[in-house]
Formats: sequence, structure tokens, C-alpha cells
Amino acid sequence: MDIVLLGSGNVATHFGKALFDAGHRVVQVYSRTKAQAIVLADALNARAIDDLEAIDLAADLYLIAVTDGAIGQVAAQLPAALNGIVAHTAGSVDMAVLIPHAQKYGVIYPVQTFSIAKPVDFSSVPLALEASDEATYAQLTQLVDPLSTQIFSCDSRQRLALHVAAVFASNFTNHLYAIGADILRKHALDFDLIRPLILETAQKVMAFSPREVQTGPAIRHDVGTMQKHLELLKEGHQGLVALYQQLSEQIYSN
Amino acid sequence: MDIVLLGSGNVATHFGKALFDAGHRVVQVYSRTKAQAIVLADALNARAIDDLEAIDLAADLYLIAVTDGAIGQVAAQLPAALNGIVAHTAGSVDMAVLIPHAQKYGVIYPVQTFSIAKPVDFSSVPLALEASDEATYAQLTQLVDPLSTQIFSCDSRQRLALHVAAVFASNFTNHLYAIGADILRKHALDFDLIRPLILETAQKVMAFSPREVQTGPAIRHDVGTMQKHLELLKEGHQGLVALYQQLSEQIYSN
Ligand SMILES: NC(=O)c1ccc[n+]([C@@H]2O[C@H](COP(=O)([O-])OP(=O)(O)OC[C@H]3O[C@@H](n4cnc5c(N)ncnc54)[C@H](OP(=O)(O)O)[C@@H]3O)[C@@H](O)[C@H]2O)c1
Ligand SMILES: NC(=O)c1ccc[n+]([C@@H]2O[C@H](COP(=O)([O-])OP(=O)(O)OC[C@H]3O[C@@H](n4cnc5c(N)ncnc54)[C@H](OP(=O)(O)O)[C@@H]3O)[C@@H](O)[C@H]2O)c1
Repeated sequence: MDIVLLGSGNVATHFGKALFDAGHRVVQVYSRTKAQAIVLADALNARAIDDLEAIDLAADLYLIAVTDGAIGQVAAQLPAALNGIVAHTAGSVDMAVLIPHAQKYGVIYPVQTFSIAKPVDFSSVPLALEASDEATYAQLTQLVDPLSTQIFSCDSRQRLALHVAAVFASNFTNHLYAIGADILRKHALDFDLIRPLILETAQKVMAFSPREVQTGPAIRHDVGTMQKHLELLKEGHQGLVALYQQLSEQIYSN
Repeated sequence: MDIVLLGSGNVATHFGKALFDAGHRVVQVYSRTKAQAIVLADALNARAIDDLEAIDLAADLYLIAVTDGAIGQVAAQLPAALNGIVAHTAGSVDMAVLIPHAQKYGVIYPVQTFSIAKPVDFSSVPLALEASDEATYAQLTQLVDPLSTQIFSCDSRQRLALHVAAVFASNFTNHLYAIGADILRKHALDFDLIRPLILETAQKVMAFSPREVQTGPAIRHDVGTMQKHLELLKEGHQGLVALYQQLSEQIYSN
């Protein structure tokens, strides 16, 4: 199929390469900055454009992978004459933002964290699909089928919940890693010391459910240890005391 | 060297096997329950005992791997005539609990999460060492040198900090995974959908520092998305609202 990519950031880059590798044709890459568009377009054997007036009108899919807040704007600038599907890739943006701007529209939300620098095995990335109608849904499915082994249907409400779950399990988790690193640094210890633990903790829940493998002083109701931890935090990490208590209480009472 | 293992739980099991595999001789395994001691003793070609009176007096190391609160008790029951080193394996127990009960004592704290069911590559487990005196420290180092590639010196205060860091980066992290699973379940979505994301999030900090790779609405100061997330949480997950806000504010202001 012929695809126009709108955006040249993390998702556009990884998604674009996966589409290209799957044998789809990426005809154009749009970015507000021509130089940005060129970098990705070159890798995908596509044309770089920085003007939406120049957009190819005959593509099958217009994939909008721009900042959440700009999705509506970009969609609004698309020519009315398009026959292809207009889809965005966001977790927390309702599909409805596309209604005024397209006949056939949808969402393809990749449940993974992307950064341009780090390669990702796209075939293991779950793809949440939603579409304006059944025919469009079927077309989107066909399109992404060669890209991933985990494709599933998900309405806008479920997708929002999925994104919230991802924030807890990924963004907030990464922040807890950062807290660990801060505490270690303050005591002249290297972050390397907990790297194997971090990896093992993630690997454990690949096979088990998180509640089954919960460990630590809170789940053991080990008040003595929690007290020692709170005293240490009160001395040098006052800002973490409330968080330690809140998380421990939640674990404790579950 | 000859080792007596006191305890037959998670750490005793993994540590015992690593010692055995490294060519050390585990002479006895003690547990209050004979049946428990036998399971591990058999695997290590050792003798099972359930009475501390029967302890081998000539061992080089008495490794106390029991519940934190019982370490002092177990140490107190050891015969006074021992020449070997008495050491415990806990993160949050001061080495000083061993002073009244031994001439030579120390701590070997493995910075990893162990469960009997899941094998662990012990050679990548960082081992935090502390000892009563230099000669004992040297002996402990020699003893664990074949077990792990990451052995380091760590006083009781640093070890406590290390354990607190581990609680944030492992126990609390696992709780965030559980929260993710809860949110998904409530919206009829499978935990499998965020498993690749969880693994990638951990793998990212193997090479980068957590602050460098922080993503999500909070770090982007994306108030609109955070608002949508909070509304969803207020409807079905009231207990998570405060936690979402607290973590977002910490990320936001860092
Ligand atoms: N990163 C992830 O891990 C991830 C995962 C799943 C879903 N998503 C979703 O994927 C989408 C893109 O995210 P991303 O991480 O790829 O973002 P990104 O790397 O920050 O890239 C954002 C893109 O949006 C463009 N852009 C920003 N403001 C614009 C505007 N007003 N008009 C037109 N273009 C604009 C930028 O292009 P310029 O060069 O023109 O500035 C850039 O190409 C978002 O909806 C996001 O929620 C992201
Ligand atoms: N699990 C980890 O991931 C981990 C990591 C690093 C360090 N540690 C430390 O390693 C030590 C052992 O932890 P673990 O996870 O192996 O614990 P565990 O699996 O719960 O095993 C606890 C052991 O303690 C014994 N025990 C409990 N109360 C006792 C008492 N009053 N007198 C004598 N023995 C008693 C139990 O033996 P019975 O059969 O006699 O009940 C059992 O063998 C703790 O200090 C812990 O902080 C654990």
C-alpha cells in the first residue's frame, strides 16, 4: 500500500521503517522542517515535503505521527479530496478528533516506548486498532498485519486506559529507577549495583503476574525495616518520605 | 572452604548452589524444620540439621540467611567455641547485631531478588561486603570471588541506602506493574499488552541513566493528557489519583 507519513519524530521513524521493511511504499514524509523530513524520507526511499499542499492525493494511508496537541491541526490542513484512511498513533487522543477531517479514519497506537536512537523489535510491539467503520478496520488490519504479531481492537476509552497503564508501568517506573540512582549517588554508590535487579524485576513479570511476585518489606508487613528506611529517607531524602509511605501502604493493604 | 548454611529459604538456596558450584564445601544446612533443611542439603551434598547444638565447629563460614528479625537470635544460639566467620545476608540489618556473638563476623548482601522457583545467574549478582576486620574482609573476598564478577565494599549505612534504592527500583516498581495490570483488567485488556513495554523500559536503563530516558506526559509538561488520565482514574481508580499526581509532580519538577 502507499503511505504518507506525517511527522518525522520517534514514532514516524520506527513506524516508517517497519512499514518499509514490510514491503509497503512510503511515498512521502511530511515535516514542518524540510531538513527533518529529508533524514527520514531518505531512509524510506520517499519524498520529503514541508508543505501539506504538496501532499500525494492517491495514498492509501495518511499516518499522523505528530505531537498529540497537533494531530487535529495537521488533520485539518489535509486536502478534502483524499480517499485514503487518515489515522493517528496516539494513546490519549480520541479518534473523534479526525471526524471533521476525513471520510475514513482510524487509530494505530503502538504500545511501546520509542526513541530515535534505540532500535526496537517492531514485530513484538502490540498495535491497538480503531477505525471509523468495518471496511476501514479491515484495511488497517491488512496493512499492519505483516508488522506485528500482536494486533488488537481497542476503542478510544480502552486506549486511554491502556495509556494510563503504560504511564504507571513505564514512565513512573523509570522515575523510580531515577530515584534509586539518586539515593545511590548520595551514598557514593554506583547505579550499576541495581541494574541486574531492575532487569530481573522486569523479567519476572514476563512469566508471572506482578501480584504473585511482589516482595519487599511492605508485603511482608516488616514494620521494623520500613521504619529504618523511613529514618534514612528523613535524613537525606525528605522529598521521598511521603512516596515511600504511600506505596508501602498500598502494597501492604492489597 | 567449609561452609555451614543457616536457613533454607530463597537466599540460602541460591547462595548455597553458587557456593557449591564454585567448589566450596557446604557441610551443613540448618533449618528449624528438618524436612526443609533436607531438601536443600541434598542438593548441596550436605548434612541437614534442625538443632544448632549439632553444628560443625570447624567450618570457615557460618552464613546466616534467615528472616531479618531472626538473625540476632540465630547468631545468639551459635556455640561460643566457633573459629569461623559468622555472616548474614541482609540489606537492612546492621553488622553490629553480630558483635556479641562472634569474634570474626561480616555481611555478604546479594543485590538481587531471589525466589526459589526462578533460576538466577549468580555471577552477575553484585555482592556487598562488610567485615569486622581486614583479615576477615580478605577471607570473605577470597570466598566469594569465584561467585560473582561484581564484589564491592559497603558499610552498614551504605548497605541500608542500597536496600532503600532497591525497594524503589524493584519492590515499588513491581507494584506499579501491578497497578498497570489492574487498570487493564478493569477495561477488559490483557496484561500481555504492556509486557514488551515493561521489558523495554528496564532494558533502556541498562545503557542509559534513567533521567536521560524519562518520557511521558509529565516530563513533557503535557497538562492536557495528564488531565485526561486523572479523569479516567477519578472514575474507576480513585485510589490512584493521589499517586498519579505525586509522581507526575516529581517528574515535572525534576
Ligand atoms: N514516543 C513514543 O514512545 C510513543 C509511543 C506511542 C505513541 N506515541 C504517539 O505518537 C505521536 C508522535 O510521538 P513522537 O514520540 O514520535 O513525537 P516526537 O518524536 O516528539 O515527534 C513529534 C513530531 O511532531 C511534529 N510536530 C510537532 N508540533 C507540530 C505541529 N504543530 N504541526 C505539525 N507537526 C508538528 C514534529 O515535527 P517538526 O519537525 O515539524 O517539529 C515531529 O515530527 C504522538 O501522538 C504520541 O502520543 C508516541
Ligand atoms: N529474597 C531476596 O530476594 C533477598 C535478597 C537479598 C537479601 N535477602 C536477605 O536474605 C535473608 C533471607 O531471606 P530469604 O528471602 O531467603 O528469606 P525466606 O526465603 O523467607 O527464608 C527465611 C528463612 O529463615 C528461617 N527462619 C525464619 N524465622 C526463623 C527463626 N526465628 N529462627 C530460625 N530461622 C528462621 C526460615 O526457616 P524455617 O524453615 O526454619 O522457617 C527460612 O529458612 C534475609 O536477611 C533477607 O533480608 C533476601
